[in-house]
Amino acid sequence: MSSPEPLIGVFDSGVGGLTVVAALRRRLPRASIVYLGDTARLPYGTKSRRTVLRYSQANVDFLERRGVDALVVACNTASAMALQDLDVRTPYWGVLEPGASAAVAAADRHVGVIATESTVRSGAYEHAIRRLDPGLRVSQQACPLLVPLVEEGWEEDEITERVVARYLEPLLRDRIDTLLLGCTHYPLLRGVLERACGPAVTLVDSAESTSREVERELGKDSGVGADGARSPGVRLFATDAGPRFAKLAERILGEPVALELIDVNGSYGQPQEVEGQ
Amino acid sequence: MSSPEPLIGVFDSGVGGLTVVAALRRRLPRASIVYLGDTARLPYGTKSRRTVLRYSQANVDFLERRGVDALVVACNTASAMALQDLDVRTPYWGVLEPGASAAVAAADRHVGVIATESTVRSGAYEHAIRRLDPGLRVSQQACPLLVPLVEEGWEEDEITERVVARYLEPLLRDRIDTLLLGCTHYPLLRGVLERACGPAVTLVDSAESTSREVERELGKDSGVGADGARSPGVRLFATDAGPRFAKLAERILGEPVALELIDVNGSYGQPQEVEGQ
Repeated sequence: MSSPEPLIGVFDSGVGGLTVVAALRRRLPRASIVYLGDTARLPYGTKSRRTVLRYSQANVDFLERRGVDALVVACNTASAMALQDLDVRTPYWGVLEPGASAAVAAADRHVGVIATESTVRSGAYEHAIRRLDPGLRVSQQACPLLVPLVEEGWEEDEITERVVARYLEPLLRDRIDTLLLGCTHYPLLRGVLERACGPAVTLVDSAESTSREVERELGKDSGVGADGARSPGVRLFATDAGPRFAKLAERILGEPVALELIDVNGSYGQPQEVEGQ
Repeated sequence: MSSPEPLIGVFDSGVGGLTVVAALRRRLPRASIVYLGDTARLPYGTKSRRTVLRYSQANVDFLERRGVDALVVACNTASAMALQDLDVRTPYWGVLEPGASAAVAAADRHVGVIATESTVRSGAYEHAIRRLDPGLRVSQQACPLLVPLVEEGWEEDEITERVVARYLEPLLRDRIDTLLLGCTHYPLLRGVLERACGPAVTLVDSAESTSREVERELGKDSGVGADGARSPGVRLFATDAGPRFAKLAERILGEPVALELIDVNGSYGQPQEVEGQ
């Protein structure tokens, strides 16, 4: 139980993946976390598999160069489209399998999945859920406006209520009993999503279920579980540092943050830091 | 009048700049156009000046390697943040100065400018308008949700009406008499914007005014003006080719399109084509 605390690397296309960081910190308060938000090239959710894989590999290479002991792909789009083709030397997790497992555990007959356009098009959540339980029905809905609405800061807003109602309408009409939030930004919309779904639908959040998986693996070996000690810290890198990213990061983590600017250069295996380090 | 027809290069962060291409084709139907949409790295509108400049220079280099005779930066964000620092060998135009001139010509006292967050933050439209007419009042409003709404295909939609009403409310309360559409996507929202503004406000569209400037320069020298001959064609390149880009491109140009995929590689002066050519 006195093994050194691990350094966990987490990346996402933007700052939404900090919902996973927040969940990890609650479960593994003694772990150190280095986070990379590829804000210069977000969103991934409308882009092709090839492009998402190229960007994701550059992010992995950057984090591995920083000596991480484990890696979490906090981006649903990257988890869905690129995870199986990534070249990673450390243990690593995507958010897709943990999210799918949690949905299967919660579901009765019919799971609704909301996600970005690319994640939906990949069909990855549907396949993962059906692999675990072929008897479950799965319906998907792409929700491309939800990330911009969160980034605008309109989480609790009548316009967001209407957009959510429109996206969920076909799922609710088809009587889903479980709703899987298949994008790291969506936990910030939990309030409006819960009100739209009503009490008959269980919401499942892949940030939470992923952090549980990581705790199960790392916590048992290294004594970094939630024993009351405080986190040695989170270091945040971003490939672009507009003021909106810092603002949203603070909303998610609930504390002031400093984003360090870096350039991962967009090509395989050639991360290049130009600032902040 | 028998000089060869020019090849005009146009780039934008995405396919929204095709509104400029559509306007150019109406005015210069005999010109050939090569278009580059940097769809792998869109949007520019939330990113820093440094990142926007780096991406824009890569786009310029790609188009110059294709032998263009003139170049239009159809992206408002790039025009506002990067135009003065670009290294360009051919004659070139941004959309900012033409848009500002048109607004000054139309305005009585008070111009409202709607644009992306980065364009607004740069203050570039405000400075350009005030330089031309220091007596005009200028008010800006960032509208980050309008591009995602257009990309979702909700141009004529009650939700879009509400979002537009909210964004325009402070401008209309302050009695603007002219509204400058400072983003290439916004001409697609002309209907809802006109209804929100009412007849007392004149809408000015920088796609239209930019194409007029290009016609004035190129049309008079090369005989490529609108004399009834049909365009020799438009060739469309994109750095990422999701289905939504092709769909939106078709909505803007009003005809089926083929997007050719290329990689401009993200670094200065090193465009590298991997497909489509």
